Amino acid sequence: MPYLQINPHYFIDNLQVIKSIIGEDEGHKIAIVLKDNAYGHGLVELAKISSEAGITSCFVKNTQEAIEVAKWFEHISILYPQSLESETLLKSCIQRENIYFCVANIESLDLYPPKSKIELKINSGMNRNGIQINKLQEALKKSLENKLEIVGVFSHNGFGDNIGSEFYAQNDSNLHIKREVLQFCKANSLKKPRFHFLSSSGALRAAKYNVSLPIELQDDLYRIGIALYGYLCQDSMLYEVQLKPIASLWAKKISTQLLKKGSRIGYGGISKVDEDMLVSTYDIGYGDGLFRVREGMELFTKEGLKIFPRASMDCISIQGDCEEVCIFDDVRPWAEAFGTIPYEILSHLHSYIPKKILQ
Amino acid sequence: MPYLQINPHYFIDNLQVIKSIIGEDEGHKIAIVLKDNAYGHGLVELAKISSEAGITSCFVKNTQEAIEVAKWFEHISILYPQSLESETLLKSCIQRENIYFCVANIESLDLYPPKSKIELKINSGMNRNGIQINKLQEALKKSLENKLEIVGVFSHNGFGDNIGSEFYAQNDSNLHIKREVLQFCKANSLKKPRFHFLSSSGALRAAKYNVSLPIELQDDLYRIGIALYGYLCQDSMLYEVQLKPIASLWAKKISTQLLKKGSRIGYGGISKVDEDMLVSTYDIGYGDGLFRVREGMELFTKEGLKIFPRASMDCISIQGDCEEVCIFDDVRPWAEAFGTIPYEILSHLHSYIPKKILQ
Repeated sequence: MPYLQINPHYFIDNLQVIKSIIGEDEGHKIAIVLKDNAYGHGLVELAKISSEAGITSCFVKNTQEAIEVAKWFEHISILYPQSLESETLLKSCIQRENIYFCVANIESLDLYPPKSKIELKINSGMNRNGIQINKLQEALKKSLENKLEIVGVFSHNGFGDNIGSEFYAQNDSNLHIKREVLQFCKANSLKKPRFHFLSSSGALRAAKYNVSLPIELQDDLYRIGIALYGYLCQDSMLYEVQLKPIASLWAKKISTQLLKKGSRIGYGGISKVDEDMLVSTYDIGYGDGLFRVREGMELFTKEGLKIFPRASMDCISIQGDCEEVCIFDDVRPWAEAFGTIPYEILSHLHSYIPKKILQ
Repeated sequence: MPYLQINPHYFIDNLQVIKSIIGEDEGHKIAIVLKDNAYGHGLVELAKISSEAGITSCFVKNTQEAIEVAKWFEHISILYPQSLESETLLKSCIQRENIYFCVANIESLDLYPPKSKIELKINSGMNRNGIQINKLQEALKKSLENKLEIVGVFSHNGFGDNIGSEFYAQNDSNLHIKREVLQFCKANSLKKPRFHFLSSSGALRAAKYNVSLPIELQDDLYRIGIALYGYLCQDSMLYEVQLKPIASLWAKKISTQLLKKGSRIGYGGISKVDEDMLVSTYDIGYGDGLFRVREGMELFTKEGLKIFPRASMDCISIQGDCEEVCIFDDVRPWAEAFGTIPYEILSHLHSYIPKKILQ
């Protein structure tokens, strides 16, 4: 069975790096994004590690994930609370004091009973999910009418990774949103909700700007996902951050063949060995959610062993006969080979792959 | 919640198409490959559908999958019986009369108690898994010494999809293997094991050749996976087969934005709408195992609605405001866009996506 090894020491190191950038005094603002099985790293495992590291707020995908991590955090926000059609799960979440529901459109405000805790998601320019800015007043009023407790107001900046003015344009929109919310809360004697408009890239880029704002306009929380897992995908030149990928993927040998020079391997015989060579198969394939190594790709294990295209659904052929190999301890070469981002490579890994926490 | 709709009528149609090619009298030789959650289609759902269609043999990935489908089939073969490190599961499988263990190397013959039912996997030229031909005698002898029951002997032809002589060279190797096995069985008064050397493409290509062989050298079983699910990936020119993809993927609307001409959507604002337009987000993303639609890709829903790059981890932006859209009912355009095969697109879908069986 392949397994994903999680290095909690690297997690702590990443947390420290992030704190050193956003400011040591701001460390309490770090919330962890645990959605999608912690980007494939293991939901419960990462809940435990991050909670032990002192993180008290988290963001999950759905009601199921919320219940699974509820005991580890003071504040759990469900980004897509309606995505699972389970009334039982929804009710369990509503009953918990520490679980909040993110609301991305006005109609959804009718889905929760009075006293439910919600966070309003505003579309401040990414044009994906969220209440449009010109409907913010309506959303606030309706929340009040429905006796919902507005715990937070937030948005997502889609330009955190990119050089250019859009990132700042969205931050300006966010200021406008915050002012409107503050005004509404004062007028209705409501407690100020927490603000969180920045995720990994944006927070590292704008935390200094954030603390330069009047205190009531500052973000109270930074939603940090991928950076805690050891990656960032920003345009080069933006800034340099030394993060350590916390996950490494390991696979075990199934069988070994001594192949003669000129032998071909796998489907279509795409790979040909240019000398007599030991080649072994290992127990991970694209059926496990790993991306399918195909013709033309030059990928190597951590040990420097060649991975022979094409990968199969349940196994992969690799030079040598080690009992165990490290498929990757940094997913960037894989992301590059497949023209994508580390998040996709990691989050595709099927959840049944066991997680081992390095001691 | 997105869902995968399975069309059992198309499954029956595909089964009929396959029978019409391999010969109506040969229909009983069809075994279904259910490994990897039935290539992402849902293990239990496809076990039920295929069993009801009269299929009595299946192939699964591991001991967990075997136990889950055990009640539906007369013969269940585990392709990677050692991949899960659960002694409990392994014991449960050993106790069942209808579960067989595929053995890909000689050392593994020591892992099963006397009377266990095994199928020997031979490497006949794909150079991936399997006992080397020159060790076949040793494997047969050791199986006998260890008092294992050899239920089957098989190989996998890696060239079923490709024009060229390799496919036939491997079939020749297979004949050699069969003769050696038959000789050994006669000499030791053993029952002839079942032979199965062909999977989807190979079976459709070589079934006629198979029945032209002396009966004891014929394949007793064809391992059919992807063709039953409605796909084949053979070189064009090989043969024409009209199969119907049995799965369609559906997603539900999260929210709608009326975007002005020139508005940008999603991460990096990659997509720009060239007229005033309704754009909605739907509840499937690459975190659910769907491939991440990125810049330059032109993908459309079944309804012909444009999917806007870049896809997010939990949602995707699509033209219009339908309550529900069909992301695909044929995965080939996706496979083409991502330079891969339908199997990978399907098997990456996370197993928690609900399966709905069309009535």
